[in-house]
Amino acid sequence: MEPSGILIKGGKVVNEDCSVIGDVYIENGKIVEVGLNLLIPAGVRVIDATDKLVIPGGIDTHTHMELAFMGTKAVDDFHIGTKVKKEMETLAKERGVNSFKMFMAYKDVFMLADSELYAAFSQCKEIGAIAQVHAENGDLIAEGAKKMLALGITGPEGHELCRPEEVEAEATLRAVTIAHAVNCPLYVVHVMSKSAAKVVSEARRDGRVVFGEPIAAGLGTDGTHYWNKEWAHAAGFVMGPPLRPDPSTPGYLMDLLANDDLSVTGTDNCTFSVCQKALGKDDFTKIPNGVNGVEDRMSVIWEKGVHSGKMDENRFVAVTSSNAAKIFNFYPQKGRIAKNSDADVVIWDPKLTRKISAKTHHQAVDYNIFEGMECHGVPVITISRGKVVYEAGQLKVSPGHGRFIHRKPFSEFVYKRVKQRQQVGKPTAVTREPYQGKVISI
Amino acid sequence: MEPSGILIKGGKVVNEDCSVIGDVYIENGKIVEVGLNLLIPAGVRVIDATDKLVIPGGIDTHTHMELAFMGTKAVDDFHIGTKVKKEMETLAKERGVNSFKMFMAYKDVFMLADSELYAAFSQCKEIGAIAQVHAENGDLIAEGAKKMLALGITGPEGHELCRPEEVEAEATLRAVTIAHAVNCPLYVVHVMSKSAAKVVSEARRDGRVVFGEPIAAGLGTDGTHYWNKEWAHAAGFVMGPPLRPDPSTPGYLMDLLANDDLSVTGTDNCTFSVCQKALGKDDFTKIPNGVNGVEDRMSVIWEKGVHSGKMDENRFVAVTSSNAAKIFNFYPQKGRIAKNSDADVVIWDPKLTRKISAKTHHQAVDYNIFEGMECHGVPVITISRGKVVYEAGQLKVSPGHGRFIHRKPFSEFVYKRVKQRQQVGKPTAVTREPYQGKVISI
Amino acid sequence: MEPSGILIKGGKVVNEDCSVIGDVYIENGKIVEVGLNLLIPAGVRVIDATDKLVIPGGIDTHTHMELAFMGTKAVDDFHIGTKVKKEMETLAKERGVNSFKMFMAYKDVFMLADSELYAAFSQCKEIGAIAQVHAENGDLIAEGAKKMLALGITGPEGHELCRPEEVEAEATLRAVTIAHAVNCPLYVVHVMSKSAAKVVSEARRDGRVVFGEPIAAGLGTDGTHYWNKEWAHAAGFVMGPPLRPDPSTPGYLMDLLANDDLSVTGTDNCTFSVCQKALGKDDFTKIPNGVNGVEDRMSVIWEKGVHSGKMDENRFVAVTSSNAAKIFNFYPQKGRIAKNSDADVVIWDPKLTRKISAKTHHQAVDYNIFEGMECHGVPVITISRGKVVYEAGQLKVSPGHGRFIHRKPFSEFVYKRVKQRQQVGKPTAVTREPYQGKVISI
Amino acid sequence: MEPSGILIKGGKVVNEDCSVIGDVYIENGKIVEVGLNLLIPAGVRVIDATDKLVIPGGIDTHTHMELAFMGTKAVDDFHIGTKVKKEMETLAKERGVNSFKMFMAYKDVFMLADSELYAAFSQCKEIGAIAQVHAENGDLIAEGAKKMLALGITGPEGHELCRPEEVEAEATLRAVTIAHAVNCPLYVVHVMSKSAAKVVSEARRDGRVVFGEPIAAGLGTDGTHYWNKEWAHAAGFVMGPPLRPDPSTPGYLMDLLANDDLSVTGTDNCTFSVCQKALGKDDFTKIPNGVNGVEDRMSVIWEKGVHSGKMDENRFVAVTSSNAAKIFNFYPQKGRIAKNSDADVVIWDPKLTRKISAKTHHQAVDYNIFEGMECHGVPVITISRGKVVYEAGQLKVSPGHGRFIHRKPFSEFVYKRVKQRQQVGKPTAVTREPYQGKVISI
Repeated sequence: MEPSGILIKGGKVVNEDCSVIGDVYIENGKIVEVGLNLLIPAGVRVIDATDKLVIPGGIDTHTHMELAFMGTKAVDDFHIGTKVKKEMETLAKERGVNSFKMFMAYKDVFMLADSELYAAFSQCKEIGAIAQVHAENGDLIAEGAKKMLALGITGPEGHELCRPEEVEAEATLRAVTIAHAVNCPLYVVHVMSKSAAKVVSEARRDGRVVFGEPIAAGLGTDGTHYWNKEWAHAAGFVMGPPLRPDPSTPGYLMDLLANDDLSVTGTDNCTFSVCQKALGKDDFTKIPNGVNGVEDRMSVIWEKGVHSGKMDENRFVAVTSSNAAKIFNFYPQKGRIAKNSDADVVIWDPKLTRKISAKTHHQAVDYNIFEGMECHGVPVITISRGKVVYEAGQLKVSPGHGRFIHRKPFSEFVYKRVKQRQQVGKPTAVTREPYQGKVISI
Repeated sequence: MEPSGILIKGGKVVNEDCSVIGDVYIENGKIVEVGLNLLIPAGVRVIDATDKLVIPGGIDTHTHMELAFMGTKAVDDFHIGTKVKKEMETLAKERGVNSFKMFMAYKDVFMLADSELYAAFSQCKEIGAIAQVHAENGDLIAEGAKKMLALGITGPEGHELCRPEEVEAEATLRAVTIAHAVNCPLYVVHVMSKSAAKVVSEARRDGRVVFGEPIAAGLGTDGTHYWNKEWAHAAGFVMGPPLRPDPSTPGYLMDLLANDDLSVTGTDNCTFSVCQKALGKDDFTKIPNGVNGVEDRMSVIWEKGVHSGKMDENRFVAVTSSNAAKIFNFYPQKGRIAKNSDADVVIWDPKLTRKISAKTHHQAVDYNIFEGMECHGVPVITISRGKVVYEAGQLKVSPGHGRFIHRKPFSEFVYKRVKQRQQVGKPTAVTREPYQGKVISI
Repeated sequence: MEPSGILIKGGKVVNEDCSVIGDVYIENGKIVEVGLNLLIPAGVRVIDATDKLVIPGGIDTHTHMELAFMGTKAVDDFHIGTKVKKEMETLAKERGVNSFKMFMAYKDVFMLADSELYAAFSQCKEIGAIAQVHAENGDLIAEGAKKMLALGITGPEGHELCRPEEVEAEATLRAVTIAHAVNCPLYVVHVMSKSAAKVVSEARRDGRVVFGEPIAAGLGTDGTHYWNKEWAHAAGFVMGPPLRPDPSTPGYLMDLLANDDLSVTGTDNCTFSVCQKALGKDDFTKIPNGVNGVEDRMSVIWEKGVHSGKMDENRFVAVTSSNAAKIFNFYPQKGRIAKNSDADVVIWDPKLTRKISAKTHHQAVDYNIFEGMECHGVPVITISRGKVVYEAGQLKVSPGHGRFIHRKPFSEFVYKRVKQRQQVGKPTAVTREPYQGKVISI
Repeated sequence: MEPSGILIKGGKVVNEDCSVIGDVYIENGKIVEVGLNLLIPAGVRVIDATDKLVIPGGIDTHTHMELAFMGTKAVDDFHIGTKVKKEMETLAKERGVNSFKMFMAYKDVFMLADSELYAAFSQCKEIGAIAQVHAENGDLIAEGAKKMLALGITGPEGHELCRPEEVEAEATLRAVTIAHAVNCPLYVVHVMSKSAAKVVSEARRDGRVVFGEPIAAGLGTDGTHYWNKEWAHAAGFVMGPPLRPDPSTPGYLMDLLANDDLSVTGTDNCTFSVCQKALGKDDFTKIPNGVNGVEDRMSVIWEKGVHSGKMDENRFVAVTSSNAAKIFNFYPQKGRIAKNSDADVVIWDPKLTRKISAKTHHQAVDYNIFEGMECHGVPVITISRGKVVYEAGQLKVSPGHGRFIHRKPFSEFVYKRVKQRQQVGKPTAVTREPYQGKVISI
C-alpha cells in the first residue's frame, strides 16, 4: 500500500517563474509544503530527487481518450453544434465545463457558418467560456478533396494536398476577426503550420486575446511522411489539419512556443491502428484522422524545446502545464508546485535518454509517429493527486483514477483584460446638432 | 466642325516605359504616327503641346455612371448573383464582357457564400474572365451595424465603426485563398485599408496573380471625416468599404501603388446629393453608399503620387491607364500613345494648379470629398477617339459618345502565367505498391 | 519609530502568475509569510489593504539618479569605453555588476565601432553579464544634425528630424546581428519607435535571446511635442533616442509590452530644468538630453496598460518588477511577494485617480512631460526593505536608504538557453576525403 | 560576308509591355522598323522566326569579364576606394560611367565604414550616379571566419557558416538606411538570401528608391552544395555573399523578381578553374570567390521563371534587359525592340530544350554550377548591334566587338522621383517666438 505521505527530497523544483532546490512534501493528494530540509513525520515514503527536476504534472489541453497518463490531465472540450445556446449556459454554470470547441472544417457535419460562429462566440463570451476553434476552411477542403481524387491522387499525400496550409491560415484569420468583433477570447486548437501560427502571433501583437496550441505531432515531426513510399507509414500521420511538408515547420512552431506567441501544447491524441487506417486505402478521405502523442508529448517538447536550447525548463513547465491551468481556470490548484496545490508531480531526469518506439510504448496502437526519436530527458516517477501512477517504467494507474475537474467560467487569465476593455472601450456617438437639411458648407 | 486630323506638336509623350519629346498625329480616331517633326497634311488642327505632357487617356476601372468624362473610359463589370454559370459564358463569349464582380458583403442581397465564390471563380477561370471581388465580411457588417445602432450610434461614424478594416482584410485574404485554390486570377476592387492592401501585397509576393485597385477617394482623403460635426459633411464620405480613420492610410496606399503592390486605380464613382444622403439621417445604414471621384481621379493621383515624388509620370500612366488596358485586354489599343492605338489622349500641364471644389466641378452633385485640395497638374485638352471632348474648361462631349468596348477573354497579362502553371504545376500521386495490409516496419 | 513588523491585511496579493487575497507579514526587511488570516505577534503595525492591491516594488531598469523612489530600484549599468575587457571582468566578478551598457550613438564620445561591439559582447558573454545597447546609428545622427542646422532648423523638432526612427531600427538590427554572431544575450535600452520594437520582436520570434525595454516616456507620450510652438515645452521632451511623432507609437509599444515582445520598463530618468535645457535654445544639439519619468512610471504604465485593458495586473507586475529581477539575477529575492523575498511592496489603490502635474510632483524639475494625464490607480503606501518610505503623499525616505545590490553573473533567465545552445549547436566540419586535385564529376 | 540588312520575319516580338507578331528590320546596327509584313530591299538576309520569340538582347548588370556574349551587355561598375570624390565626378561627367560599387564586406581591403558610405552616397547623388553596394557586414565575416577555422571547419561549408544570411540582411538594411538619409537611390548587387531580399522589398514598400539584383546562381541553385562530400564540387559554388543552404531561397527570389520587389538580374560572373579554386583546399578563406553564370543566365531565368509560370515572357524581358537599360540610362536605345533602338536581338525558341553542362558550354572553366539542369527555351540566334554573333551553336563574335556605352548620369527612371522629393519634401523649422527664458506653462 502507498504510504499516506510522500517526501520528494532534494530535487530542483521547477515552476514557470524559477527553479529552486528543495523538498516537496505531499499528503492527502495535496502539496503540504515546499522548502529546504523539510521536517516530516515518520513513515512517509521518501523519494530521492537529487539531480532531478520536480515539475508540475503536464496538462494536455487537447486529447481524445479515456485515461489520464503520466500526470497528463486532459482538458475536455465540448463540440458545438448549431443550436446550443441554452445548453452551453447549463454546461458552463452547472457542469463545470468552461470551454467549447467549434469547427470551421468538416463541411456538412460539424462545420459552422460565419454567422453561427459569431453567435457561438457571443455566447461563450456571455458565459465566460473559452471558445476553441478547429480552423480550416471546410468548403475548400471539400473541393480540394474532390479535385485530388479526380487527379487520381488517392493516397495519404492527397490529404495534405487538398488542404494546404493557407486553408488553415485563412480560417485562423477569420476566427480571429470574428472573435474580435465579439470581443471574445479565442483558443486555436492544433496550430499546424507556419502561416497559421503567424496569424495567431500577429493577432497577439495587435493586442487580441488569442491563444495558439501547437501539438506534439506538429512540434516533433512533419508532413513529408505523407509521401512515404509505404502506405501504412504515410497513413499513420493522417490528422486534420495535416502535418506540413515544409520541414522547417516544427522548429518554427517551437520558436513561437518558446517566445509566447503560442501558449500551450496538446496532442489531439486520437489513435487508430494500421488496420483501422486501412479503411482509407483507396481513398485518403476515408482514412481515420488521428495520431498518437499523449504518451510522448512531454519528451518530444523537452527534446525539441529544452534540449535544443530554444526554451528553458521554466518555459517548459509553462507550456506543458501552467498556462493550460491558467486558461482553463484551475491555477494554481494545478500547474504549480506550491503549498496547497494538487499533488500532480513529475520527477524528471534530464540526463537520462530514451528512444521512442512502438515496440516499447504503453499505448495499444501498433506504430508511433515519433519512431526512433532519441530523447534526452525522461520522466522517472509520476504522481497524480498524491498517488504514484508511474514508476520504473510501469503504469500503476487503476481504472477510474481520472477525475473531471469542475472548472469555473471567466478565467481571470483570459477574461480580465476582455472585461476591462468592454468597460473602457465602448465607442460613443458624435454629438451633432440634429440634421436640418441644410446645405453643406465645407 | 472638327478637322479630320489633329497634330499634337512638341509635347513630351509619356508612356509607361519612358517619355520622349515628339509629335503625335491623329486621324480617324487613331494615332497614325508618333515621332519627331512629323510631316502632316495641310488643314489639320495643330495643338501646341510644348512644355506639356501628352498622356494616354485615363481608364477608370471602376465607376458607376453613364458618361465617359475627360478621356475616362469606364470598364463595366457585371455583378454576379448565385446562378450564373451559363449566362457568364454567354456574356464572355458573345457580348465581350470579360470581368465579373462578386460581393462578399451586402448580406441577404448580393453576398455570396464561400462555396458560391468557389464556383464563380471556377467559372471565371474556365472562360478566361477577370474575377473581381468586393471584399468585406458581410456577416460581420450586419452584426456590427446592429451593435452600433444598439449603442445609440446612428451617425456616419457608425458606418466605419461597424466595418473596421480587419473586416475588409479578412475577406480579402479569404478571396485570395479561394481564388488560389481554383488557380484563378483575382482583382480586388476598392482596396481601402492598409491591412487589406497588405494582404494583396503579400499575396503577390507569394506569386499569386492578384491585382489590387485603390480608388481616388482612398488615395486622396480619409475616414476622419465621418466624425465631422456636420452630418451632411460626414455623410458625403459614406461608401463601402469605408474610408479609414487612420490618416496614414492614403500615403500608404499610394506607396504600394507606386511600387506595383497595387496595380490600377478606379473611383467607384457613384454620387448622391446631400438630399439623397439624408435618407440615412437617423440611421447610417440607410445612407446611400457612394462618393464622387471620376472627375478628379487623375488630378488627385497626380498630386498625391507624382507631385509628392512617390511615383514618376510613367508610373502615373501605368496606374491610370496602361495596366487597366492590359488587365481588361485592350492594350495597346488603349493605354499607350503609339502608332495604331486609339486616339485617347490627354494633354496635361504639370505646371498649372487648380483647387478642387464643388463650386467649379462638372458633376451635378452638390459637394466634393476633395473640396479645397490644391492640385498641381491640370488636364488642358482631352481627346477621345480622335475628338476633342474637353478644352478650356469646357466639356464638349455629346451624348452617346461613349462606346462599349468588346473585350476578349483570356487577357495574356492576366492569364499567361496561370495557364503555364496549370500545365506544369499539377500534383501527381506517389507510386506505391498496392497496400497489402502488412504491418508497418519503420 | 517604525514598529519591527508590518502586517498588510486583506489585500489582493498580485504576482506575475496570479493574484490571491491574503495577508503579507513583514519583519526585518523580509517577507516572512503570505497567506490567509495570518497570526502575527502583537505590536506590529497593521495596514488594512482591503480592496487594494499588494504588489512587488517596481524595479526601474534604467534611470540616472541618486535616489530610489516609491519602491523603485535602479539597476545601475556601467558604460563601456573601448578598452575594458579586464575591468569588465573585475566588475562582474568582484563588484557584483552584471550589466554593461554600450553606445552605438554619440559619435566621437561613447560610440563603439562594430568590431568593438563584437569584442564587448564577447566579453559580456564570457563573464555572464547583460550586454545593453543604446541603439542609434551615431554616424547618421552626426550627419543629420549638420543637415538640419544647415537648413536653419535649430529648434527641438530638429532633434527628431536628424535621427528619425529608421536610424534607431537600423542600429537595433545591427546590435541583434552582432550579438547573435557571438551567441550573446542582448538588452536594448529605451526602445522608442515602432520599427525598432519590431526588430526586437522579430528577433525574439527567430529565437534570439533579446530583451527590449520601452520607457515611461515612450509609453505615455509622443514626439509631436517637439513641434510645440513653445520652445520650453518642446525642449522638455528632448531625449535620445527621441520620442516619435507618430502618435500611434505609445499604443503600439504597450501592445508589444503586454504581449512579451518587449520585456521590461525603465525611465531613462534624467531631468534638467528649463534653464538647463535653455543651453540649446539656438541649437538643438546643445539641449541637454533627458526627461522625467521615475516618479510616474508605474502610474503611466498602469493607466495606459492596465486601465486600457491591454494587460492585466499580473503582467503589470511582470513588466515593472519581476522580469527585471529575473534578468538582473535577483529573482525571487526581489520581484515577487513571497516568503523570504525582500519586503519591497507597493500598496496600490486601483480605484483612486490622480492627475500628473509639475505642480504636485516630488521631483525638483519644473515641468512634467506627462502634465495633465489623468491616472487611474495610485500607490498609497510604498515599503522598501521593510520600511515605509512613502505614505499619504509624503516621501519618508532618508538619504542613504538606497543600497547597491550585488548581482551575480550568468542569470539563468538570460543565460540558460544560451549555454545549452552553445553545447548542442556547434557546427561541425563535413568529413571529406583529402582533396586530391581530381577533376570534378558531377 | 554578313549582308547589310537583316529581316527577322514572322516572330513574336516581345517587349516588356506586350508581345505582338511582326517583322523586325535591321540595318547599320539599328532597328529600322517593326511591323506586319514589312517591305524590305532585296538582298538582305531573311531569318524566319515563325513560332519563335524575338527579344531584346540581355543586359547582364553584373559581370566581371572581358567579352560580351550572346547579346549580353555588361554594365561596368567602378569600385570605390575611400577617397574618390573628385575622381567620381570626372568619371561620371567625362567618361560616361554612371555607377559606382561600394563594399561593406572585405574588411581591411575594400570595406567602407558607415561614414565613408555616407560620403560616397552623397557624392553619387550629387553627380547622378547609381550607388551600388555589396552588402555584407565585413567585421562579422572576419570574426566568423576566425571562429570557423578555430572550430576546425576549413572546407567550403565554412564559407557559408561564417557569413550566414543575417550578415547580408543587416548590411542591406544599413545601406538602405544610409542611402535614405542622403536621399540617394540605391542598387544592391547580388541579393542572395530571403532575408536580404525582404529588406529590399520592404524598403520599396516604404517608398525608397532601391533596386535589388539577384543573380543567375542565386536563382538557379543553392548553398546545400557547400556540404557536398566532394571538395571540388563544393568549392565551385564559393562566391560572396554565398549561396544559401535554405533550398526555398531560389524560388523565393524568383517570386520577388516576378513581382518587381527585385528588379534586374546579373551573374557576378567570375570563373575560376578547379585548380585555381584549390588554392583554398585547406582554408576556405583562400578559395577564389566566383561562379559561372553569364552564358546560362537567360536560360536559367527562363526555366525557373517563365517555364515555371512565375513570370510571363514580358516580365522576362524586363528583368533581363529593359530594367537594366532604364536604370543605367540607355533605354530605349537598348532594352526594347523598337524603331531606332540598337539592333541587339535574341531569337528564342521556347519549345527547344537543352541540358546545361560543363561538357558543352562555351566558357573555359571546367565545371558548371548548373550542371544537368534541363532548360526549356533556347536562344537560337543572337544579334549584337546588327551582327549575328551566335548561331547554330557557334559563337561568331570577333575580339573587340564589345563596346563601352557612354552613359549619362541622372537616369530619369532612377532620379526623377528623387529630385521631386528633394524639391517638395524639405523639412522646415517651426516658427517660434524667440525664447525668452520664460517658465513653461502647459
